[in-house]
Amino acid sequence: MQLGILGGTGVEGMGLALRLANAGASVIIGSRDEARALASARSCNQKLGRPIIAGTANREMLRACGIVFLTVPFSAAIEAVESIKADLLPGHILVDVTVPMHFSGGRAEYAEQDGISGAERIAEHLPGGIHLVGAFKTIPAHVLSDLNAQLNCDVFVCGDVPEERVRVMEIVRWIPTLRPLDAGPLRTARTLERMSVLAVNLNRTYKKKGARYQIEGL
Amino acid sequence: MQLGILGGTGVEGMGLALRLANAGASVIIGSRDEARALASARSCNQKLGRPIIAGTANREMLRACGIVFLTVPFSAAIEAVESIKADLLPGHILVDVTVPMHFSGGRAEYAEQDGISGAERIAEHLPGGIHLVGAFKTIPAHVLSDLNAQLNCDVFVCGDVPEERVRVMEIVRWIPTLRPLDAGPLRTARTLERMSVLAVNLNRTYKKKGARYQIEGL
Repeated sequence: MQLGILGGTGVEGMGLALRLANAGASVIIGSRDEARALASARSCNQKLGRPIIAGTANREMLRACGIVFLTVPFSAAIEAVESIKADLLPGHILVDVTVPMHFSGGRAEYAEQDGISGAERIAEHLPGGIHLVGAFKTIPAHVLSDLNAQLNCDVFVCGDVPEERVRVMEIVRWIPTLRPLDAGPLRTARTLERMSVLAVNLNRTYKKKGARYQIEGL
Repeated sequence: MQLGILGGTGVEGMGLALRLANAGASVIIGSRDEARALASARSCNQKLGRPIIAGTANREMLRACGIVFLTVPFSAAIEAVESIKADLLPGHILVDVTVPMHFSGGRAEYAEQDGISGAERIAEHLPGGIHLVGAFKTIPAHVLSDLNAQLNCDVFVCGDVPEERVRVMEIVRWIPTLRPLDAGPLRTARTLERMSVLAVNLNRTYKKKGARYQIEGL
């Protein structure tokens, strides 16, 4: 099974592509602009030292990949979903990695979505039969993209279809020192997205870059 | 300095009293009913094997204690604050440990407070000059009250007065294997309270009782 990265030109997308490819997954970076996808793939492959990540236009990526990670900034997520809507088919699993956040007065603030999560907001734009899974929302891009950094943390996976959560949790398990945790329905993203904002603020307060969550006692 | 526990008859309150007293703090359990406070103190002292926790009516507790932990269930918190309002004086630090939560269909759900946190809701009922600090919201009562259990986790401390956060963080540091983290303003409780609900649901999913948060990378 091949894994797609939509938004593989950002730090989070490239980090995820690197980690997944490094774990042995077959990864394709998709972009509206094929040249940009190819450039990102090339840059990833240089970091890996092996030409194992491919880059294509989104349509081809979606044709090849059953699971696609949405790694664009949240502000671009709905437009990105709308642009691939016609190519999403039943069976596709879309994994939302985004967090609605803005900066104000030196602190990160959660960008409220009228009481629901960014993930639920995005899910409203999906065609029928396609569900959204939330994952990797609390993993800092900075740590993800540094292949020498041990992750040592938990990935909270949420979504309304239990089988889809299980599929995504299996993929998380491929990456060393990451543990997937079943976080229940998609609305848990209301918590996970705020946790990401908290981690950013902890980084600012403690002058670090990699604050991330590990659950003790499970 | 003496530490007060308001609501010391519940598991969270008794757990906190036990941990603080065990760490060498002078702890007074307060209750509207002095007899109940005395009974809780006695029960704690039996667990500790030393008669070091006192119990009094709330008014005496507030006269003796500069820092008071509010450990009643959230549903009783506003009434509790209203009942002690007349005895709260500038300089008192009130630490809110509560989480608004209900159970539905076998899962814990966050009890939404019109977009703000339970902590902010409680703070609306405080007299001028008294601020609220949120802490211990994500620490399971079950683990807190078992003195043989290593905590090994972080306590997120939030509040709008930096000096008050520092005071509470110093107290957290007394308890072995707990690390206080400065989580910024009181509104961070919106995140922390939801994290507590997530931990309860992780416990249910994984059939455990002590899920708690540790931040990696700080």
